[in-house]
Amino acid sequence: MSAIDEVLEKNQVFAGEYQDRDAPRPPRKRLAVVACMDSRLDIYEILGLEEGDAHVIRNAGGIVADDVIRSLIISQRIGGTREVMIIHNTECGMLTFKDADLEKQVAHEQGHEAPFAFGAFSDLDEQVRRDVEQVRTNRSSGTETPCAGLSTTSAPAGSGRC
Amino acid sequence: MSAIDEVLEKNQVFAGEYQDRDAPRPPRKRLAVVACMDSRLDIYEILGLEEGDAHVIRNAGGIVADDVIRSLIISQRIGGTREVMIIHNTECGMLTFKDADLEKQVAHEQGHEAPFAFGAFSDLDEQVRRDVEQVRTNRSSGTETPCAGLSTTSAPAGSGRC
Repeated sequence: MSAIDEVLEKNQVFAGEYQDRDAPRPPRKRLAVVACMDSRLDIYEILGLEEGDAHVIRNAGGIVADDVIRSLIISQRIGGTREVMIIHNTECGMLTFKDADLEKQVAHEQGHEAPFAFGAFSDLDEQVRRDVEQVRTNRSSGTETPCAGLSTTSAPAGSGRC
Repeated sequence: MSAIDEVLEKNQVFAGEYQDRDAPRPPRKRLAVVACMDSRLDIYEILGLEEGDAHVIRNAGGIVADDVIRSLIISQRIGGTREVMIIHNTECGMLTFKDADLEKQVAHEQGHEAPFAFGAFSDLDEQVRRDVEQVRTNRSSGTETPCAGLSTTSAPAGSGRC
């Protein structure tokens, strides 16, 4: 069975048992979390979030790409969030390759260069601080948006501020 | 207490009780899920995913922006995923505004235009189909990547293929 069919079956079970929790669209905690797509990070579980608590934005590395800024602007202006938390994790896949190697591979197989940098990095804490700075300098609201940067072990266990 | 402090406290509790589940970095189900950042979508819960099962990529709308393509390339080439699932949801915030209005607001307050489209849409199923097409035409592997597009109720309950 394909993974898609498998999780769709599980979704049917979930849907059959689901009782509406009446969660609002604007996140209750007025919080947006930016994190890596890493399969080991169940953001709701590790942060104790309930359905309806926070926007969750994720990509490869949890880096603050333009699309994250786009999402944060919408999160703040349409969804009313007021705090941002950025979570990167140890043993992140982004620490395991170099942009140049992946660029070469993709260009070779697709016949053209990818129109973006892949964003691999070598220093996790430094990358977190850079991403926090990205949010601070690109903030969409006139007010200071509190933004915390964290690194967490991939296991995952505890998080520490960077 | 700020939302950040609150979830950090919850993370400390989680970390204190956490027992390593020995989840691998390459997702077990070789699946990447692309979904909206909507706070009501606890992707692990609604799809019955365990820690380590799938990459989870999320942004405003769950639309296949360039950064999602970047993440999918890394997911497939570094993380070894082989299937993609795109999930949009009813009552999505992206159905509630028009790009032009948000552009005007941001330009007025920031003094310059945002360097991207905000990506609001008016037809959920149509947008899912468009995003599936985006993945198919941008696939990074030489092989056909199975890609399913779903819409789910925001409650959330069941998902249906689009």
